[in-house]
Amino acid sequence: MVVEPCCARFESISLEGGATLSPVEVAYETYGQLNSSKSNAILITHAFTGDAHAAGISHESGKPGWWDNMIGPGKAFDTDRYFIICSNVLGGCQGTTGPASVNPATGRPYAMSFPVITIRDMVRLQKMLVESLGIRRLLCVAGGSMGGMQALEWATSFPEMVRCCIPIATTWRHSAQQIAFNEVGRQAIMADPDWCGGEYYETKPPARGLAVARMVGHITYMSDESMREKFGRRLREKDKLGFDFGVDFEVESYLRYRGSQFVTRFDANSYLYITKAEDYFDLTNGTGRLADAFRTVDTRFLVISFTSDWLYPSYQSQEIVRVLRRVNGDVAYCDLQSNYGHDAFLVDVAEQTEIVRGFLDSTARMAEAA
Amino acid sequence: MVVEPCCARFESISLEGGATLSPVEVAYETYGQLNSSKSNAILITHAFTGDAHAAGISHESGKPGWWDNMIGPGKAFDTDRYFIICSNVLGGCQGTTGPASVNPATGRPYAMSFPVITIRDMVRLQKMLVESLGIRRLLCVAGGSMGGMQALEWATSFPEMVRCCIPIATTWRHSAQQIAFNEVGRQAIMADPDWCGGEYYETKPPARGLAVARMVGHITYMSDESMREKFGRRLREKDKLGFDFGVDFEVESYLRYRGSQFVTRFDANSYLYITKAEDYFDLTNGTGRLADAFRTVDTRFLVISFTSDWLYPSYQSQEIVRVLRRVNGDVAYCDLQSNYGHDAFLVDVAEQTEIVRGFLDSTARMAEAA
Repeated sequence: MVVEPCCARFESISLEGGATLSPVEVAYETYGQLNSSKSNAILITHAFTGDAHAAGISHESGKPGWWDNMIGPGKAFDTDRYFIICSNVLGGCQGTTGPASVNPATGRPYAMSFPVITIRDMVRLQKMLVESLGIRRLLCVAGGSMGGMQALEWATSFPEMVRCCIPIATTWRHSAQQIAFNEVGRQAIMADPDWCGGEYYETKPPARGLAVARMVGHITYMSDESMREKFGRRLREKDKLGFDFGVDFEVESYLRYRGSQFVTRFDANSYLYITKAEDYFDLTNGTGRLADAFRTVDTRFLVISFTSDWLYPSYQSQEIVRVLRRVNGDVAYCDLQSNYGHDAFLVDVAEQTEIVRGFLDSTARMAEAA
Repeated sequence: MVVEPCCARFESISLEGGATLSPVEVAYETYGQLNSSKSNAILITHAFTGDAHAAGISHESGKPGWWDNMIGPGKAFDTDRYFIICSNVLGGCQGTTGPASVNPATGRPYAMSFPVITIRDMVRLQKMLVESLGIRRLLCVAGGSMGGMQALEWATSFPEMVRCCIPIATTWRHSAQQIAFNEVGRQAIMADPDWCGGEYYETKPPARGLAVARMVGHITYMSDESMREKFGRRLREKDKLGFDFGVDFEVESYLRYRGSQFVTRFDANSYLYITKAEDYFDLTNGTGRLADAFRTVDTRFLVISFTSDWLYPSYQSQEIVRVLRRVNGDVAYCDLQSNYGHDAFLVDVAEQTEIVRGFLDSTARMAEAA
């Protein structure tokens, strides 16, 4: 399945922080066919550094989508049955308006003059896109990590538009530790002299700082176990203890490679804006009363976490589940056994597939019966 | 108790990597009195960024030592009874020869021409110091984190010199995840243009890179729980969501402060050399056969870990304990309940005190009876 990106353009969007972006573009892809009653649409929301290319083979790059193991004919999100939409988030750098976009008022990239954005702003832009496709109600919004935050925001901000919601490996608000890891990434970028207060688009990007930020990220995406299985203490050059500051261990080489790769595909200012959106995210708007957020929601929920995920630990999903039960919400929960850490939602999909498939099927049948 | 630093100077030391350092100086402090039979000496080994000032009030800085809550009259390491020695590690930057020291051959700081050093080299220099004080057998070697690695190295390299060994919150070799965290810190330093290949002593140090490295470190020293208790999601300016890239959350402010503080007291090149020594450390010299390392050791062991320590997780201590039991070693083990993460060995000392005190007392009495 070769896929091509689409782009929608809207006159403007008013943001939670008070600013207005005008115009605003959103890059997206779709897979499968929208049925005549427009009742089979599923929105997939991507994680921090993801993009609109969730499935199929990109016409442009030849690469499979980031959730191609979950989306396609006969897969968890079955494209023979459902119409799948995935868009790049607001503030991103893969086709949707973000800090690297040209500000029409100045003719130059926004850089740090880009307004602060929130998860809610991302979701409101997605809502504009969904409505522009003539869809009044989504069968499902599903996503992992920051994608799960968007799914939760959809279900609480626009419950009438979401039949079911699948937040995976996520949280209703960042803990101090999660904020701390994001802050280290931001500081690494801003410490790079090439960052230049964000004005690097005509010179060179803060590649070293961004690579360090990504390295920290990669450690948090994996688990102690999965790193041991993948690298152990294997030395880069067999049987040779380098005794220098080159690469001694394979894990070092892997991190350096992933760091340097990331720089070619991601914008440092987007890194700053999107991590801040994650840190600001709080489904209770600071009250801490999660029950209030869910009280009027009749969306069905399937909450999934993974046992070895220490970046978004299972207890955070369990808080959501407990509160949903308390307000008599419709919620199923699975804490899936996996050694892959936070990456599990992307790579350890066998059990996830069965659970998601069954949940979508029952939701679709309930919708038909209604 | 006001304390003053001492310094010992030796003609040279031959290093595991093949190089010779000449001369070599070691900064140390002592607390309590050495008895006439010189049988009451305890060596305290410090963690990565620690120094020789373990206890008492520094004459110079007016500050208490890093383990002052554990060392002193009536404390776990009771200075009314024992003679305590703590020295700054080889490669350090607090008085012992390290990369910032002047190379007598050139008249300039070693910088990256400093030879690669290992935990074993650190221990061999400590042995030279201990012997120069006329001590032939230590009652105990005790330390946490990298200090625990040194304690383990002492017990296996020079078992005849160590009656008992207290490795705390440590490991017999770094996991891939532990190497990965160290590597991120090194990369952050080396990515800073001010690092200049280590030749910054006549210009300015790589302060931004070193601060980022320290920020990563601080996250790993605390636990998810202790960060939540200390910071939660409290905003820096009350009730005000900044919506900018200044400091929004208290945890951000804390990390930035600790990062910037660290730069004033620690040398970036020492950071590189000492973290590499940690990563190279492997009590089995690469064989993975831990039982072989302990087979001929008759030192008594007290192994301590902390439940919320995810940097040096309890399972790593339990591996040591299991193998010591397998070779019929004398080992006591406690996994202490604490929310403080890796920092627990420094701050959560009530239970640790009782356990250490009892273990030292029984060891001293066995030594007297022998």
